[in-house]
Amino acid sequence: MFSVKKFAIQNGNSLIALMHEADAKELSLFSKDKVKVICNDSKAFLICDLEVFDCDKHCNLTLKKGELGLYEEAYARLTCSSKKRVSLIPAPKPKSLEYIRKKFDSGREIKEEEFKLIIEEILENKYSDVTKTFFVLACASHGLNDNEVISLTKAMINVGQVLDFKQKNSDIIVDKHCIGGIPNNRTTMIVIPIIAAAGLKIPKTSSRSITSPAGTADTMEVLANVEVPLTQMHSIVNEVNGCLVWGGGVSLSPADDIIIEVEHPLEIDSEGQMIASILSKKKCAGSTHVLIDIPIGKTAKISSHKKALELKRRFEKVGKAIGLEILAIITNGDEPIGNGIGPTQEALDVLSVLENKENAPQDLLEKSLQMAGIIFEMAKVTPKEKGYEFAKEILESGKALDKFNQIRDAQGRKELSAKTKFVEPILATKSGKIVSMHNKYISRTAFILGAPKIQKAGLRLHKKIGDTVKKGDVLMELYSESKLKVKYAKAYLQEHQEVVEIKK
Amino acid sequence: MFSVKKFAIQNGNSLIALMHEADAKELSLFSKDKVKVICNDSKAFLICDLEVFDCDKHCNLTLKKGELGLYEEAYARLTCSSKKRVSLIPAPKPKSLEYIRKKFDSGREIKEEEFKLIIEEILENKYSDVTKTFFVLACASHGLNDNEVISLTKAMINVGQVLDFKQKNSDIIVDKHCIGGIPNNRTTMIVIPIIAAAGLKIPKTSSRSITSPAGTADTMEVLANVEVPLTQMHSIVNEVNGCLVWGGGVSLSPADDIIIEVEHPLEIDSEGQMIASILSKKKCAGSTHVLIDIPIGKTAKISSHKKALELKRRFEKVGKAIGLEILAIITNGDEPIGNGIGPTQEALDVLSVLENKENAPQDLLEKSLQMAGIIFEMAKVTPKEKGYEFAKEILESGKALDKFNQIRDAQGRKELSAKTKFVEPILATKSGKIVSMHNKYISRTAFILGAPKIQKAGLRLHKKIGDTVKKGDVLMELYSESKLKVKYAKAYLQEHQEVVEIKK
Repeated sequence: MFSVKKFAIQNGNSLIALMHEADAKELSLFSKDKVKVICNDSKAFLICDLEVFDCDKHCNLTLKKGELGLYEEAYARLTCSSKKRVSLIPAPKPKSLEYIRKKFDSGREIKEEEFKLIIEEILENKYSDVTKTFFVLACASHGLNDNEVISLTKAMINVGQVLDFKQKNSDIIVDKHCIGGIPNNRTTMIVIPIIAAAGLKIPKTSSRSITSPAGTADTMEVLANVEVPLTQMHSIVNEVNGCLVWGGGVSLSPADDIIIEVEHPLEIDSEGQMIASILSKKKCAGSTHVLIDIPIGKTAKISSHKKALELKRRFEKVGKAIGLEILAIITNGDEPIGNGIGPTQEALDVLSVLENKENAPQDLLEKSLQMAGIIFEMAKVTPKEKGYEFAKEILESGKALDKFNQIRDAQGRKELSAKTKFVEPILATKSGKIVSMHNKYISRTAFILGAPKIQKAGLRLHKKIGDTVKKGDVLMELYSESKLKVKYAKAYLQEHQEVVEIKK
Repeated sequence: MFSVKKFAIQNGNSLIALMHEADAKELSLFSKDKVKVICNDSKAFLICDLEVFDCDKHCNLTLKKGELGLYEEAYARLTCSSKKRVSLIPAPKPKSLEYIRKKFDSGREIKEEEFKLIIEEILENKYSDVTKTFFVLACASHGLNDNEVISLTKAMINVGQVLDFKQKNSDIIVDKHCIGGIPNNRTTMIVIPIIAAAGLKIPKTSSRSITSPAGTADTMEVLANVEVPLTQMHSIVNEVNGCLVWGGGVSLSPADDIIIEVEHPLEIDSEGQMIASILSKKKCAGSTHVLIDIPIGKTAKISSHKKALELKRRFEKVGKAIGLEILAIITNGDEPIGNGIGPTQEALDVLSVLENKENAPQDLLEKSLQMAGIIFEMAKVTPKEKGYEFAKEILESGKALDKFNQIRDAQGRKELSAKTKFVEPILATKSGKIVSMHNKYISRTAFILGAPKIQKAGLRLHKKIGDTVKKGDVLMELYSESKLKVKYAKAYLQEHQEVVEIKK
């Protein structure tokens, strides 16, 4: 029997238990072993990763034989009424590992009940980083068929919290999502206030950037707090009809949050897991009707029309199976939507559209109105073909801006400051017409400049596809707080002339 | 700039740096980030995984702003002349991840230079558990061609230490290895003393069990210390011609040790990585001639003759490419070799053979003599067809036993005690002839009884394939320190009647 002692160490979602080496030896346990810590009173338990403490004197920390140290996350999650008396046994291997092995070895379909167990065991911390990666890669290497995506989506919803904003059963709760890959493209921050201003509820959660220079959550964070707990999100949506919060903060689909932690370093985003991830979150957020944006373009995530259509079909099919009405649209992903890249620069574009400024990027404005219009039509707020006009009216009347300000205030307003120490123009090296832009290289440039960690860092495009330029014209401006980063970004652009392709 | 503080926490080969939350905030760093800790004096560096300390008062440990806590393994490996002044930057992503991604996505061949970088970056701790798993699974899912296995083997040797036992260039240093999968099969502990008694050098390292009830290192550990540092292994072999030590303790192929840590929980042992793992260790141990044992059988690792021949071809080809003479032999893997299963029970079998006892298991005796004979012939100690007789002479004369005792003494002798609290006979449920035994289920039974963690736990077969039994005859005896484990093992045997198949 052990007595628990709290250690003030954060371990990034890992659950760590620290044991005295004498106890570890007695129990034949080693560092990195998984152990099950059980409250003697309530029989509640927590599976932790073991570390061994081995110092008897002159140490910076103390842990006696018979004491079990729990790092912050583990301490918070172990819900004993008294942490003075806990027991400990080696944790069994996850039972569901067998299904993953079969999938990896032969591509065998994972059944609904099997996905359920996999997701439950992941959430119980029975999986390590190694076995979580096994799961992600087994699914990615063979792909998931429609049945599997549906099963995985259901399994994720099963362990999440499902919000409910409906007052009566026929109420429609809307949402939108873009599969990503296009720089800026911040339609969300314009669509949500337009929709909410019309009285529809739209409980939107967004992700932070992984490898891009900004996610919607990073951009919104320039203007408001986005780390909002679930209960507050619920009350904000009830109060002002919409929100723009960080998905990781509300943890609507906790299994997905854990799986994504593994996918990031791999830069793997397999189709089946992407669909399950997106739709499980929408379902948990309480939506009934969701618009999905699938941009296609040579340097977008999806480059062929055929693949885009297949993805659209799958989104709509999986949606139907879990009781969501999904409409997926295929949009132009040839170049960034909007001109600023990086959190602050993107926020400036969003504000200029909401404020009906003349210099607002027209592509961002148009796309946002079209999407808001489709959502109005899906929700039968307007008849077919009338959504766009209705959205435009709301935007031009200033009601969308008012609604956006209400959302900022409700989440916790922040004020924007855009000035950076270094501003560097990039000039056209020849005259001609711009025929293509490279989404990934543009993103990478802004990333090198410091975005999204440095909010103000990034760049602003002065020209887009179709524009005619003369040699020496400014193509874009770079912004950074670091001279060295400006130097690196310029060198990167030099090496990647295809970022902006000019043809005579 | 930081001042380093040591923390008495073992993290199982992870390199952990603990940072005050104020510093982490200032540097935009989070738990689990990889950071490069650089000595200000020597510019030596170490890549660590970050954890964040966030307590100002009433804590069990103290870490001030400006201090960097290093856990044991990291502290030992950071070689600054003064640890008072170190700098810290975010660690770059491994450059070699790109090659792994291409392999995973399309099966593209990984080139020699690319394997070199992958292995170097793994050793520099630039890889996390997630990305290490990516490497293992990318290789496993597409398989490695001969070129790739050769490149990987060379890359592993490149970062290891190569021992040299030769006095002149033409000296022959021998070794043997079995690909595993057959319970007991402890030929190594008999072959090494026979070979060493004849004056040949045989620097043998073995692995501990992963999922089996005992590896050779676990079994040898019953009789002697096996955790011997590299320099001591070197002097033991020079002194008594052979050793039987745990490979993980000498770390001949450190990259392989790291990769194996990931393979274990996945229970993946892909052919290409297995060959590279085995042969890199043999090369680093200073061998020139190696005998490889490939058992085939319905429940062995390899079940078809065709696959066994292909594996033999690959071992021999890769060996040639790295300057090793390899002979791979295909042996009978239909049932356990020897009768005891579990460290202590297997050690008893080995001793009975070395001591020329009448009750010694004849299959273990014969196989050991045959293998030792082949090694004598490979090393031209005897002419062709004369090796077996020579090996038999050495064994029967007692010289092999003397040599084994010398090795035990040199490594640190331990005495065996075999008595367990619980002994449970398993009886034949019908009469007939034993036609098959299931290697994996027999292993699993011994594992359930507590082997290898509990050395004495395991079982002893009283009958083997070909034996005639009557209903009620003892098929095997189970040994355990725990009544509950005996109960579980009996239930497991009940469920798996094919463990011993009896036909009328």
